Amino acid sequence: MVTRKVDLRSDTVTKPTEAMRIAMAKAEVDDEVLGYDPTTLVLENEMARIMGKEAALFVPTGTMGNLISVLAHCDIRGSEVILGDKSHIHVCENGAIATLGSVHSRPVKNNKDGTMDIDLIESAIRDPACPLLFPTTRLICLENSQAHCGGRCLSVEYIDRVGELARKHGLKLHIDGARIFNASVVLGVPVHQLVRAADSILVCLSKGLGAPVGSVIVGSESFISKAKIIRKTLGGGMRQTGVLATAALIATQENVGKLAEDHKKAKILAEGLNQIKGLRVDVEAMETNIVFVDIVEGCNVTAEKLRKNLEQHGVHFMAWGPHSNRLVLHHQISTSDVQYTLSCFQKALSGLRLDN
Amino acid sequence: MVTRKVDLRSDTVTKPTEAMRIAMAKAEVDDEVLGYDPTTLVLENEMARIMGKEAALFVPTGTMGNLISVLAHCDIRGSEVILGDKSHIHVCENGAIATLGSVHSRPVKNNKDGTMDIDLIESAIRDPACPLLFPTTRLICLENSQAHCGGRCLSVEYIDRVGELARKHGLKLHIDGARIFNASVVLGVPVHQLVRAADSILVCLSKGLGAPVGSVIVGSESFISKAKIIRKTLGGGMRQTGVLATAALIATQENVGKLAEDHKKAKILAEGLNQIKGLRVDVEAMETNIVFVDIVEGCNVTAEKLRKNLEQHGVHFMAWGPHSNRLVLHHQISTSDVQYTLSCFQKALSGLRLDN
Amino acid sequence: MVTRKVDLRSDTVTKPTEAMRIAMAKAEVDDEVLGYDPTTLVLENEMARIMGKEAALFVPTGTMGNLISVLAHCDIRGSEVILGDKSHIHVCENGAIATLGSVHSRPVKNNKDGTMDIDLIESAIRDPACPLLFPTTRLICLENSQAHCGGRCLSVEYIDRVGELARKHGLKLHIDGARIFNASVVLGVPVHQLVRAADSILVCLSKGLGAPVGSVIVGSESFISKAKIIRKTLGGGMRQTGVLATAALIATQENVGKLAEDHKKAKILAEGLNQIKGLRVDVEAMETNIVFVDIVEGCNVTAEKLRKNLEQHGVHFMAWGPHSNRLVLHHQISTSDVQYTLSCFQKALSGLRLDN
Amino acid sequence: MVTRKVDLRSDTVTKPTEAMRIAMAKAEVDDEVLGYDPTTLVLENEMARIMGKEAALFVPTGTMGNLISVLAHCDIRGSEVILGDKSHIHVCENGAIATLGSVHSRPVKNNKDGTMDIDLIESAIRDPACPLLFPTTRLICLENSQAHCGGRCLSVEYIDRVGELARKHGLKLHIDGARIFNASVVLGVPVHQLVRAADSILVCLSKGLGAPVGSVIVGSESFISKAKIIRKTLGGGMRQTGVLATAALIATQENVGKLAEDHKKAKILAEGLNQIKGLRVDVEAMETNIVFVDIVEGCNVTAEKLRKNLEQHGVHFMAWGPHSNRLVLHHQISTSDVQYTLSCFQKALSGLRLDN
Repeated sequence: MVTRKVDLRSDTVTKPTEAMRIAMAKAEVDDEVLGYDPTTLVLENEMARIMGKEAALFVPTGTMGNLISVLAHCDIRGSEVILGDKSHIHVCENGAIATLGSVHSRPVKNNKDGTMDIDLIESAIRDPACPLLFPTTRLICLENSQAHCGGRCLSVEYIDRVGELARKHGLKLHIDGARIFNASVVLGVPVHQLVRAADSILVCLSKGLGAPVGSVIVGSESFISKAKIIRKTLGGGMRQTGVLATAALIATQENVGKLAEDHKKAKILAEGLNQIKGLRVDVEAMETNIVFVDIVEGCNVTAEKLRKNLEQHGVHFMAWGPHSNRLVLHHQISTSDVQYTLSCFQKALSGLRLDN
Repeated sequence: MVTRKVDLRSDTVTKPTEAMRIAMAKAEVDDEVLGYDPTTLVLENEMARIMGKEAALFVPTGTMGNLISVLAHCDIRGSEVILGDKSHIHVCENGAIATLGSVHSRPVKNNKDGTMDIDLIESAIRDPACPLLFPTTRLICLENSQAHCGGRCLSVEYIDRVGELARKHGLKLHIDGARIFNASVVLGVPVHQLVRAADSILVCLSKGLGAPVGSVIVGSESFISKAKIIRKTLGGGMRQTGVLATAALIATQENVGKLAEDHKKAKILAEGLNQIKGLRVDVEAMETNIVFVDIVEGCNVTAEKLRKNLEQHGVHFMAWGPHSNRLVLHHQISTSDVQYTLSCFQKALSGLRLDN
Repeated sequence: MVTRKVDLRSDTVTKPTEAMRIAMAKAEVDDEVLGYDPTTLVLENEMARIMGKEAALFVPTGTMGNLISVLAHCDIRGSEVILGDKSHIHVCENGAIATLGSVHSRPVKNNKDGTMDIDLIESAIRDPACPLLFPTTRLICLENSQAHCGGRCLSVEYIDRVGELARKHGLKLHIDGARIFNASVVLGVPVHQLVRAADSILVCLSKGLGAPVGSVIVGSESFISKAKIIRKTLGGGMRQTGVLATAALIATQENVGKLAEDHKKAKILAEGLNQIKGLRVDVEAMETNIVFVDIVEGCNVTAEKLRKNLEQHGVHFMAWGPHSNRLVLHHQISTSDVQYTLSCFQKALSGLRLDN
Repeated sequence: MVTRKVDLRSDTVTKPTEAMRIAMAKAEVDDEVLGYDPTTLVLENEMARIMGKEAALFVPTGTMGNLISVLAHCDIRGSEVILGDKSHIHVCENGAIATLGSVHSRPVKNNKDGTMDIDLIESAIRDPACPLLFPTTRLICLENSQAHCGGRCLSVEYIDRVGELARKHGLKLHIDGARIFNASVVLGVPVHQLVRAADSILVCLSKGLGAPVGSVIVGSESFISKAKIIRKTLGGGMRQTGVLATAALIATQENVGKLAEDHKKAKILAEGLNQIKGLRVDVEAMETNIVFVDIVEGCNVTAEKLRKNLEQHGVHFMAWGPHSNRLVLHHQISTSDVQYTLSCFQKALSGLRLDN
C-alpha cells in the first residue's frame, strides 16, 4: 500500500500553510458586499501597489478574474477579443466569454514560445470602416507565463510592443497573469514592469503562491468599478472575505521567493525524465514550474496508462493528450519528492514496456 | 464619539464565531476543482441529507446559487422563467439570468404574503403549441421566506400546489431558500418537507446562519452535475474550499436553533418602533427576522435622513425607498442592542421633527 | 363546399394590390447592403418625413424592427427595459430581447386602456446608486395601438408624459407602432405628433397598410446608424429590397385613408356579435380594427370549437384563450363579408348549443 | 462622363430579370407566418428536392440562414462550433453566433484550397470527459465554394470525410453553400451529392443565381422545425413571401446553367489582368467566379487608389486589403464588359505609375 503522495497535478493543489491558517483564524472581517471587508482591502491595496496599478479587486477564482476582465473591457454588444489559440481563456475556460458574455473570439496562432506574431495580431484587428460585416475589436489578451506553451514567459519588450499596438488601435490589453510571478522570477523583472503596458491583469493567488482560494484583478479605478459590478452579477460578491484575503496576503509574502526553487526542481525533474528511455522533455524550452513529458513514438504506452501506473505509487499528475503528461511543481514538493517521482517513472517505463 | 455598533443592515453581516475560526484553522482540504475537497464533501452530503435531496453543491454566494439553478433548468435557448415580481432573483440579482444567461423573465404579481396566485402562475405558462410567438416556459421560482414581502413564509401546502402545477406542465420548480431555515422555524416544519416539491433549492449559509462565505444548492444528481459545470463556467470553482465549508457546517449546527430568537427580537423591535410617533410597522405581517419600518405621512423626515442620523449613534440599517427603512436581526444582535436601537430611534424622531 | 373566404385572422393577411404588383415589376433596385437601393431610400425618406424624425430603416418584419430598436438603445451589457406586461414585445416576440440580446425585462401592468400608470413606470426605474444589485434601466417601450388591450390607442398627452419621465431619468422611449396609423386615424392626430416624444418608432407596413413584406423603424441618424449594423447582424440586410419597398410605399399612399373604414366595419361586426346570444363584445372599449369576442359563461362551447366551426364556412379568425376569439378587420374585408360573418356566427351559436 | 457601368463588386448586385419581375407581379401569396405561403412552399419543396434533403426554409438572407443553422444545431448553452479561420461565418457575419447566440468559436486554419486538415479538425473537437474546462463541440461548418480562399471548391470526397468525422464524434455538419451551385458546376457533381454528408446547408439565391432577395436552408424536418422558430425569433418571419419566392424559383431554373459562363469569363478576366504589368492573379488557383488581383510589390499604387480610379470609368469592385482587389463575375456581366474592364485596368496601371 502506498502512503507517500506526490501531487503534481497542478500548482493549484497547494494547501494553506500554518501561517495562513493562524491568520485565517483571527482575520478582521466585515461584509464585503455592503461595503468593505478591511482585510480584503489591505490585500487589494497591496496587490495594486505591487502591480503598479490604481486599484485591485479580490475574486473567487482566476477563471472569474479573466471573465470579469474581458466583460469589463467588452461591455458593448458586438465586441471581439484577440487572443492566443493556445491561451487558457480560449481553450480552458468553458468558452465563458461567449457562453455568458456573448463576446466573439478571434484567436491568433501562439508560437512555441507563447508569443503571437505582432503582424498577425495587427491583421486580426477589425477595420472599423466595415461595421456591417465585422464585430468591433476591443481587447487583446496575453498570457504570462503561457501554460499551454510549456509555461513560457513573455518579455517586457514583447508585451510593451503589444501594448503599443493596442493603444495605436484604441484597444485594451489584458494579461492573464495566473502565473505572472513565475514569469517575473524567471525574467528577473519586477511584476509591475512586466505589466506596465496592460490595462488589466489577473493574478492568481491559489496556484504557486499557495493561498487556499482567490485571485485578484488589477487595473485603473474605472476598470475596477466596472469589475465590481460584474463580479456581483456573476455571483462572485462574497461576504466576510477577510478570512480568505488574509491567507492570500501571506501567500504573496511567503511564497513568491520560493518560485525560483520550484523552477529549479522542475528543471531537475525534466532533465531526469528526459534521460529515461521512452520519454522526452524539451528541457531547453522549459522556463518555469511546468514539465511536459512526451512518450516517444514506438514506446508502447499511452499517457493515460502511464498516469494510472504512477498513481498507484502515489505520484499524481495529468495526462495531456494521448502521448503527453503534464507535471507541475510547487512549494509543497520537496527535492526528495522529485527523486521519488523519477524513480517511479523509471520503474513504470521498464515494467510497462514488458506488458506490451 | 460612538463606540457601540449595532449592525442591522442585513443578516449577511454576521461574523464567523470562535468555533468557526478554530475549525477553519484545521480544516482538511484538497483541490475541489481537480476532484473533491473532503470537508466540502461532508458539508454537501450533510446539506443534501437535511434538505432531503440526492446531492448538493457548495457555491460562493446565494446570487450564484440562484443563477446556476436557473441556468441549469433553462439550458436550452429560448427558455422563460416564471417568478415573483418582488422576488430577489427578479429585483436584486442584476438581471443576471438575462444578462448572462439569455433567459427571459415572466414575472407574476407577488401578494403581500409572498405568494403568487396559482391561477396567475398557470396563465403565465406559455402554450407550447405556439412556438413561433412564445419562448418555452421551463421553470417556476418561489422564494421562502420572501425578503421583499416582509420576510413572509410560504406554507408547505402552497409550495406543494405550485409543485403539482409545475409537474402538470412539465416544468421545474426552484426555491430561492436563502432564508429557508427561517421559514422552517416559523412554520414549525422541517426544511426537507418544505422543499419536497422542488427540483432545486438555494440555501444561504452566510446570512442568518452566520458562515463567513458560501451557499449551497441541492437537487437531483443530474441537476448537480449540470450545476457543477455552470459553477466552473461562472468562475465559482474555488480550490481549497474546505476552509469555508467547515465554517458553513458549523453554521448549520450552531445557528439554526438561534433563528427563533432572532424572530422574537425582531418582533420586540417591530412593536417598539410601531409605538414611536411618526413610525409604523405592520407587526401582524411580520414572521421572521426582517423589520420594515415606514415613516408615516406628514412626518417630515426621509428614510435616508433617518438612516444617517441613527448611523451617528452606531445603529446601522438600510433605507428602503424614500419613506421606509429595513432592519434585519441576526444572532449577533442582543436584546440590549434592540433596546438601544429603540431608544436611538425615539431620540432621532423627536429631534428630527424639530429640525423640519 | 365553401367557396367564400373571409380571412379575419389578422391584418397581416392582406395581399398586395394590383398597383403594388405593377410597381414591384418595374421598381428600380440596387444592392442595399453594398450601398443604397434607390427605391428603399425613397421609402425611408418618406417614412422619416411622415414620422417627423431624421432617418428611417427598412426591415423585414415588425418583430425585427422592435428587436433592433431595443438592442440599439440597450447596447451596453446589463440593460433593462420597462414595458407593458401585455405588450407585444413582452408577450409575443419569443422573448427575443433576452434570448438573443441578453436584455432584462421589467414589465409594468398594462391597464385595460393600454396605458401603464406613470407612477408605476417611475417606481420601476432602477436607482443608479445601486449598481451592485440592479441592472441599468435604459429604455421604456410603449405600444400604440395596444393589440393585447383590445387595440386601444394611447393619446398624445399620455405619450408626452412618458417621454418627459424618460428624459428626466436619462432613458430612451421606443414606440411599437405596428398599428400607429390606426391610432392616428382614431385620435385624429397626425402620426408625427403622436410620436414626437419617442426616440424610435416601429411602423409596420404589412399589417393594415397591406404591403406584402416589411416594416420601417425611424429615429435619429445616430440611432439608425446603430440599427443598420444590428439589422445586418440579425441577417436582415437584404439585397434588392426595392421590389418590396415600392409596394410598401404604395401601401402608405393607398391604404392609410382606408383605416377609418376598417374601424367602422369592426364596430359593425362588434355590435352584431354582441347581439348574438352567447357572445359578448366590449363595444365601448373598441377603438380600432381588432374585435375580441368572448363566449359568455354557461354557453357550452370553447373558442377553439367555435373557430373550427366557422372555418368550415370560410370564416377564419383566431382563438384567443379558451373562451375568447379575435377577429381583425382590414381593407380586403367588405361590408358584405362582415354580414356574412355575422350570419355564420349566428348559425354556429344556435347549432352548437344543440350539440352540447 | 461615364455612362457605362460594370458592377463587379459582388454577385449579390444582380438585378431581377424580366421573367422574375413578371412572376413577382402575379405570384400567388398568403401569410407565411400564420401558415404557408403557397409559392414559398413550392420553392422550399423544390430546393429540398434539389439538395436531396427532407425539408427547406426560405430566409431573408444568407447571413440569417447561417445564423439560424448554427443556433439550431447549438441550442444548448455551452456549445462550440469548429469552423475555418477564413470562413465567412467567422470573418464576415459580425460575430453573430457569439453576439446573439452565445456560441463559442473554435477556428481551424483554412488551407489555400479552402480545406481544413482533417486531423486539425479532429484535434479541435473537445474531449467530453472534461466538461469543467471545455465547452461542448456540437457542430463543424464548411464553406463551399470558399469565398475567402479564392472561391475554391471542396470535393465530395473531402466533405464526406468531414461528415464521417462529425458522425464519429456525434457532431452535426453544416455547409455554408452560399455559392454551392458554383462548386457543383466546377466539380461536375450534382449538388445533392455534394451535400449528402451535411445535416444542414445554406444556399443563397440572391448571389450568382440572381434572385432579388432570399436564401434557403435545407435539412431534416426536425432541423427545419427548429429553424422556423429561430427565424421568427430573429425577425425573419416575413408575410407574403411568395413575391420573393417566385423570383427565387426562377433564379434556380434560369441561372444555374449560366454559372459555367461566369467561371469562363472570370478566367478570361483573370488571365488578362495577370498579363498587365504590376498586377498578379493566381490563375491556377481560380475555379469559380471570384478573381483576386494582387498589386505586385514595387508597383506604386494601393488597392484603394486603383479601385477609385477604375470607378471613374464605371468599373466597380472592392479593395480587399491594401494590395489586393476582388472582382466578382455574374450573369449580368458580358464578354464585352470583361474586355472593357481589362482595358480600363491597362490604362489605369500605366497612368497611375506615372503619378507616383
